Amino acid sequence: MDRKAAPRFERRRLTHIDRSGRPRMVDVSAKPATARRAVAEGFVACSPETLSLIIDGATTKGDVLTVAELAGVMGGKRTSDLVPLCHPIALTDLLVQIVPDRSLGGLRIRAEAATVGPTGVEMEAMTAVSVAALTVYDMIKGAERGVEIRSIRLVSKSGGKSGDWARPADGGKGEPPAPPARGPGDRTAGRIVGPRKAKS
Amino acid sequence: MDRKAAPRFERRRLTHIDRSGRPRMVDVSAKPATARRAVAEGFVACSPETLSLIIDGATTKGDVLTVAELAGVMGGKRTSDLVPLCHPIALTDLLVQIVPDRSLGGLRIRAEAATVGPTGVEMEAMTAVSVAALTVYDMIKGAERGVEIRSIRLVSKSGGKSGDWARPADGGKGEPPAPPARGPGDRTAGRIVGPRKAKS
Amino acid sequence: MDRKAAPRFERRRLTHIDRSGRPRMVDVSAKPATARRAVAEGFVACSPETLSLIIDGATTKGDVLTVAELAGVMGGKRTSDLVPLCHPIALTDLLVQIVPDRSLGGLRIRAEAATVGPTGVEMEAMTAVSVAALTVYDMIKGAERGVEIRSIRLVSKSGGKSGDWARPADGGKGEPPAPPARGPGDRTAGRIVGPRKAKS
Amino acid sequence: MDRKAAPRFERRRLTHIDRSGRPRMVDVSAKPATARRAVAEGFVACSPETLSLIIDGATTKGDVLTVAELAGVMGGKRTSDLVPLCHPIALTDLLVQIVPDRSLGGLRIRAEAATVGPTGVEMEAMTAVSVAALTVYDMIKGAERGVEIRSIRLVSKSGGKSGDWARPADGGKGEPPAPPARGPGDRTAGRIVGPRKAKS
Amino acid sequence: MDRKAAPRFERRRLTHIDRSGRPRMVDVSAKPATARRAVAEGFVACSPETLSLIIDGATTKGDVLTVAELAGVMGGKRTSDLVPLCHPIALTDLLVQIVPDRSLGGLRIRAEAATVGPTGVEMEAMTAVSVAALTVYDMIKGAERGVEIRSIRLVSKSGGKSGDWARPADGGKGEPPAPPARGPGDRTAGRIVGPRKAKS
Amino acid sequence: MDRKAAPRFERRRLTHIDRSGRPRMVDVSAKPATARRAVAEGFVACSPETLSLIIDGATTKGDVLTVAELAGVMGGKRTSDLVPLCHPIALTDLLVQIVPDRSLGGLRIRAEAATVGPTGVEMEAMTAVSVAALTVYDMIKGAERGVEIRSIRLVSKSGGKSGDWARPADGGKGEPPAPPARGPGDRTAGRIVGPRKAKS
Repeated sequence: MDRKAAPRFERRRLTHIDRSGRPRMVDVSAKPATARRAVAEGFVACSPETLSLIIDGATTKGDVLTVAELAGVMGGKRTSDLVPLCHPIALTDLLVQIVPDRSLGGLRIRAEAATVGPTGVEMEAMTAVSVAALTVYDMIKGAERGVEIRSIRLVSKSGGKSGDWARPADGGKGEPPAPPARGPGDRTAGRIVGPRKAKS
Repeated sequence: MDRKAAPRFERRRLTHIDRSGRPRMVDVSAKPATARRAVAEGFVACSPETLSLIIDGATTKGDVLTVAELAGVMGGKRTSDLVPLCHPIALTDLLVQIVPDRSLGGLRIRAEAATVGPTGVEMEAMTAVSVAALTVYDMIKGAERGVEIRSIRLVSKSGGKSGDWARPADGGKGEPPAPPARGPGDRTAGRIVGPRKAKS
Repeated sequence: MDRKAAPRFERRRLTHIDRSGRPRMVDVSAKPATARRAVAEGFVACSPETLSLIIDGATTKGDVLTVAELAGVMGGKRTSDLVPLCHPIALTDLLVQIVPDRSLGGLRIRAEAATVGPTGVEMEAMTAVSVAALTVYDMIKGAERGVEIRSIRLVSKSGGKSGDWARPADGGKGEPPAPPARGPGDRTAGRIVGPRKAKS
Repeated sequence: MDRKAAPRFERRRLTHIDRSGRPRMVDVSAKPATARRAVAEGFVACSPETLSLIIDGATTKGDVLTVAELAGVMGGKRTSDLVPLCHPIALTDLLVQIVPDRSLGGLRIRAEAATVGPTGVEMEAMTAVSVAALTVYDMIKGAERGVEIRSIRLVSKSGGKSGDWARPADGGKGEPPAPPARGPGDRTAGRIVGPRKAKS
Repeated sequence: MDRKAAPRFERRRLTHIDRSGRPRMVDVSAKPATARRAVAEGFVACSPETLSLIIDGATTKGDVLTVAELAGVMGGKRTSDLVPLCHPIALTDLLVQIVPDRSLGGLRIRAEAATVGPTGVEMEAMTAVSVAALTVYDMIKGAERGVEIRSIRLVSKSGGKSGDWARPADGGKGEPPAPPARGPGDRTAGRIVGPRKAKS
Repeated sequence: MDRKAAPRFERRRLTHIDRSGRPRMVDVSAKPATARRAVAEGFVACSPETLSLIIDGATTKGDVLTVAELAGVMGGKRTSDLVPLCHPIALTDLLVQIVPDRSLGGLRIRAEAATVGPTGVEMEAMTAVSVAALTVYDMIKGAERGVEIRSIRLVSKSGGKSGDWARPADGGKGEPPAPPARGPGDRTAGRIVGPRKAKS
């Protein structure tokens, strides 16, 4: 065998089991159950015409907002089925909100999840946003193929040993300070997604 | 009852059942089975340090790339369970590829789905990308909470009555020379998958 | 062993394998794919007050009709996961309609399913109605515990070797001729469920 | 936009988020875990000939009773996958019983569910009955298409803040006093479903 | 980066995408639909006392054989949900048979699956056997913890480009020549199940 | 009706409900939540050539070990969906390890599951091993059809009223003392599966 490209299982045998590169759920057996909550957000960018169809409830597949919110809730409940290393979680709350925003050129999606347990619900909130976004896409793709799902990300989390966290005000991930004026669909769209929007 | 805010079911009774605003699967009973294929893409933006952890296979949850690619494949197979109005589809192909890209500051995700049937596989490709992205997020969130999933969108589709479609050349992956000036993260950024901007 | 109460596996050994009492999917390998369609219906009986809450969209859990219609569609897609001996089916159409009916004292549910395949979609239509009814129940149970799901049954089917079938005009299953006048919630409610209601 | 038929999202913006018409899981994060139990019942009405096939174990699909009881248990475990706004629940008990009843002209189904948690198990019991009933229907529909699922409803619940509840002796929901004599399949069938049957 | 242990994604970049080591479904888009069938088998070894409990139907969890056969059928239908790179398949037949065999000291399990499609059903048959075996284990583990699931393997397959296949008469993998005559549960039965042979 | 072969439901009516032969989940409502852990193991026997393909990562479907380990984890999380009478469990840990072993002629699989709850996780560990084994089989069946899954069994469990249990050193279930010398693939292979193997 070529030593220079040692197969994975050979390499991992050299290391402790917890460091072997094996996929594994994090062991939370010894962690206490605490109240946890997480909020995530996302954005679906589309043309003003498509947005009007949604607002008027005139898409061929029905009422986009309710369908997508509901899909988000149901998707969030199935997080541990989808994301391989997520623990099954007894969600105590899950709410998905979708708000069309003409000035941003799309739909803002926000999900909030909660549980009382040994591990957090960030993935449930993120998954709920993702499935809601996919559902919006599905319902409008007949009208506009180029629709884009943007900026799915955690807004805040609370509870657990790692403590509370909130996305920094600048909107996160390497973003420069928010630019001043902008048209629909521009980069700020993603950044302002969610109800945190101030006057900036 | 207040006429000005007539409840949904009253309003929809005024209209033809197919136009009632009810969510419904599109009836494809009479459509012929044809070969169909779709490609979607997405991007997960993270810090250079996190990217190094992924590339070195040193995350606490294991080999991010293989796990997320596999989660994408499995998620894509469950599209009709997740997206309410999608038809169940007998996928004949589904491939998910994730490539870390230091210059772009994150991981590029691409999914390709195929079937022979009466309806397309855009949603399967989009869902596979989304679930793969969520899985990447899950596996690195312990290292960096602010990671963002960006620009999930269709790249191309073929087959079916609506014919072939490809994202306009300026918009993506397989990409022509990058457009001229722009700041990181601007709206084109999203369009071109990630803030890959750079100097080019 | 007591001969008088011979255990199942002993008894079934005496018989041909296909007659052994074993649960089994019907083998449809040799049946041609044909267009098939089925319609089912059901009824959820509730008080006038609860019905008003639904019509006004004022339940604590949201818009009952859209949520339940969507749940019905999603539930219908999962029929083969729920009903042990159902074949997995590539549905080509699935529509669930819920109509509040004050005169009948409840909500009429109707589902229509279609496929092109070797086996029918009666179970998909029946399951869609059942899940829609359960969802209505879930959303109003906080207001009224005694709500009852009634008369889930097949309305018609077409396609396949066994040919077309439609429920006899009297409403089916051992029912006596429809009684004359009656108030909300009485047994006729179930019988008239669906849009077939005539002059009665 | 037409004021008389204001689209949903416009209307709901006028209201508090909790009153917006959005589908949402009820937040049970602050509710204590208590022992909860619920019983539901239902009835499948069929002809005496079909009932004999079931009792003799002579249907083409196998032993109807065991298969349907098991399907009910498995379906009850998947309640939160099916009913959109149900919480995932760690069931501690789930039993489904199906008893053929020649005098009533069908099969009585009863399910009992239990958990220790912040929310009730009514939906788990109702769903178990529904899936068991659908399975009975599936297994006998080849013999009799007109079979009808009747009177799925809650019998009793205990535990939780809202306290205990039991269906009133008259059989519930707006029913008139039970009629005197009756043949198989009549409306009383549903009413007497379950082991509560007295001397009536 | 250390060349001697180049991370997976670096290595795979050197190769063609189809040879990159990425998990992928085999592309069957261009394969014709043909009739396919597969048979698999397995064995659950337990003590004579436990076997008697099963045969007498006296386990605390109910009728082991019917429950496990049904679980096998339902599990087989979910193969593509469980085995990551399996294609979703429209099964046309699936039968699971479990036969207690005192002479072999356990239960023989056999599953037969069929479809008409572009890919085979070996995995459906193998999964059905596995889930049936797990269910047997679950139902008797209270009586005997040391129960072992043995020799799950393909017996035969037909259809498809790779043609028919049947397990060689010696029973496969490391087995001694088949013993001569035997009574109930005789060699045909026993032979295919497990390498438990021994001296006989 | 023939008394000698009284149908199941007649017989079971003669007995107490808990003894009726009905499938049922064991009622754990009154059991306290305790920390529980279980380890299971299994073995996949294949030819040296196939094993080399796996070790070299050269199968057509990708990196067998990571894919199968991950499938095992995901499968273990779905145990209560697959095994009819298993309780849904909030797993706190689940790890699957697969180690190729040339001397034994195959791959050793080991799964460890944990929870804090009223019931054990043996089935989760057993299911994780089974799904991992099926996935290994799926990925190598193109190279070798005769691959066999062997000796899936519990290694140990801890927690709960029934206390701790560990498989006896002789390898369990009716096995004779381990034979001395052996070639790859013989019956001892199964027995040594797992990391308990000593110097032998």
